[in-house]
Amino acid sequence: MTLVLVPASLPVTLADIREAHDRIRDLVHRTPVLTCETLDARAGNDAGPRHLRFKCENFQKVGAFKFRGACNAVFKLDDVSARRGVVTHSSGNHAQALALAARLRGISARIVMPNNSPQVKVNAVRSYGAEIIFCEPTQAAREAAANAAVATTGGTLIPPYDHPDVIAGQGTIALEFLEQCPDLEAIIVPVGGGGMISGVAIAAKAVRPSIRVIGAEPAGADDAFRSKRSGTRQPPPAAETIADGLRTGLGDLTWPVVRDLVDEIITVEEQSIVEAMRLVFERMKVVIEPSAAVGVAVALDRRFSARSGLSPTGVILCGGNVDLDRLPWM
Amino acid sequence: MTLVLVPASLPVTLADIREAHDRIRDLVHRTPVLTCETLDARAGNDAGPRHLRFKCENFQKVGAFKFRGACNAVFKLDDVSARRGVVTHSSGNHAQALALAARLRGISARIVMPNNSPQVKVNAVRSYGAEIIFCEPTQAAREAAANAAVATTGGTLIPPYDHPDVIAGQGTIALEFLEQCPDLEAIIVPVGGGGMISGVAIAAKAVRPSIRVIGAEPAGADDAFRSKRSGTRQPPPAAETIADGLRTGLGDLTWPVVRDLVDEIITVEEQSIVEAMRLVFERMKVVIEPSAAVGVAVALDRRFSARSGLSPTGVILCGGNVDLDRLPWM
Repeated sequence: MTLVLVPASLPVTLADIREAHDRIRDLVHRTPVLTCETLDARAGNDAGPRHLRFKCENFQKVGAFKFRGACNAVFKLDDVSARRGVVTHSSGNHAQALALAARLRGISARIVMPNNSPQVKVNAVRSYGAEIIFCEPTQAAREAAANAAVATTGGTLIPPYDHPDVIAGQGTIALEFLEQCPDLEAIIVPVGGGGMISGVAIAAKAVRPSIRVIGAEPAGADDAFRSKRSGTRQPPPAAETIADGLRTGLGDLTWPVVRDLVDEIITVEEQSIVEAMRLVFERMKVVIEPSAAVGVAVALDRRFSARSGLSPTGVILCGGNVDLDRLPWM
Repeated sequence: MTLVLVPASLPVTLADIREAHDRIRDLVHRTPVLTCETLDARAGNDAGPRHLRFKCENFQKVGAFKFRGACNAVFKLDDVSARRGVVTHSSGNHAQALALAARLRGISARIVMPNNSPQVKVNAVRSYGAEIIFCEPTQAAREAAANAAVATTGGTLIPPYDHPDVIAGQGTIALEFLEQCPDLEAIIVPVGGGGMISGVAIAAKAVRPSIRVIGAEPAGADDAFRSKRSGTRQPPPAAETIADGLRTGLGDLTWPVVRDLVDEIITVEEQSIVEAMRLVFERMKVVIEPSAAVGVAVALDRRFSARSGLSPTGVILCGGNVDLDRLPWM
């Protein structure tokens, strides 16, 4: 019997997430859940294998879960606001996600990207029809350029994670996952800015209060781990990790959720991340990015695998956008 | 209206394949069918995209369709024969497939492998509990060693493709595929020894006589293409192709099926194979081996894509066992 305290400060409710799901259901892929006996064996202990359930958001449109949040934010806009378009600054999966969501609604998207962004990412965003605004590669320049675009166009700024509609969109992963696997005892979620784990924790704990929600972080970018331990939000370190999607710190909206609803954060070293990534390629035949491998590495880590119970455990493979010319084991 | 002549010389019937399916249904994975809008667009023409349906046998146990045929052959043995074990010579996916199938039945497997086999393949076969018999790396030495093992043990030789039970097992791919996608207009199948395309052609043409069955071959190992053109079985060339699973020539049983039931063979160049393989990694987030990429390359080739109709087309992603340290685009 687990008692869950739901603080008043949550940015979204289960109802918001259900509404988001109704809104985006026909626009997103209902991604499959895969299993793998080899990984189950490696994630087990003396008592036997642990059943892992992998939610394949790497098969989501644009190759990452980010499309859910962007889609919900874009399709929730009223028609008048929508006509003025959307704006964001991002060089990652959120940029592509917002560009595609805007195209599907038939509105404009302006994406601020640092002028040193890899050409492949610039091309990807452009291929979805977004307008790219280049800026100097500093946080201040990015924000200034985004604010200028908002001021000029009257468009709506859709940040990558610290926004209720984005969080609600990411929460739809948990609704689907628990429809597909109603008996999950735990769910492992990679943590960067905290948008995904916030939405997932709110939805999962509401639908299945006994579920354990575990954040997965690289040891080299362990601000959520340190924040939870200290009880106050810690700034992100000058992160050195191949899991580039997880270098961000928690936001004003996501930190209270991580503090109050996430059961714990487990960190893993770079070598474990690379090994987990390779194992998923090799045995599951699935392409994941390093951020997704962080969750797998936690499932395989002895600090998690040695525990009893918690089977089945869900693992969210959050994305598959990886540079195939530089796989990290090469 | 298509008239299908079913020659008397077919090695198996639809009934055999249905029986195989009943036999192995609970032992094999019912592999999922994936779609990808990007590949659909690239496989299309001026009239629009072509809908491709990818049957993911790379997610099959041991990472390849070969498990179906081995499983059917092993589980069809009567108890007396089974107790004497099974034997084969193979350094490829069939070796692992037979080793696992034997383990699941609780009988012994002896696998003859050339003494220059990559250690990773030796380890994989051994991990399934099979006994490995090393031999000189020539066809004659392999056959001699396998025959010696049969003579010593009284075990049953299960060849990789030219055997009715193996062909029937591979045919179950088509039964499943047409259950999952009953409206397939065509199906593209990589051709090596012809076990898969024989089983698939027999099952698919029986269930859906109008379906077009197309063999996919590397231009560097185009013996099936040349055999069909000339009407007599041609020996395999000293093949130079990265699609190592497709270097084999057709067998006594598979050649008549390819001759009489397969509509045509389309060959693709090495560069197209590599590009298709990378595209599948990049856009579908799925790990395939070069042999599987041959089928994708045919779907994308103008000689196929320019045709009208034939949508949806099924493509069998036959395996995902690839050396991750030497991906062919590196």
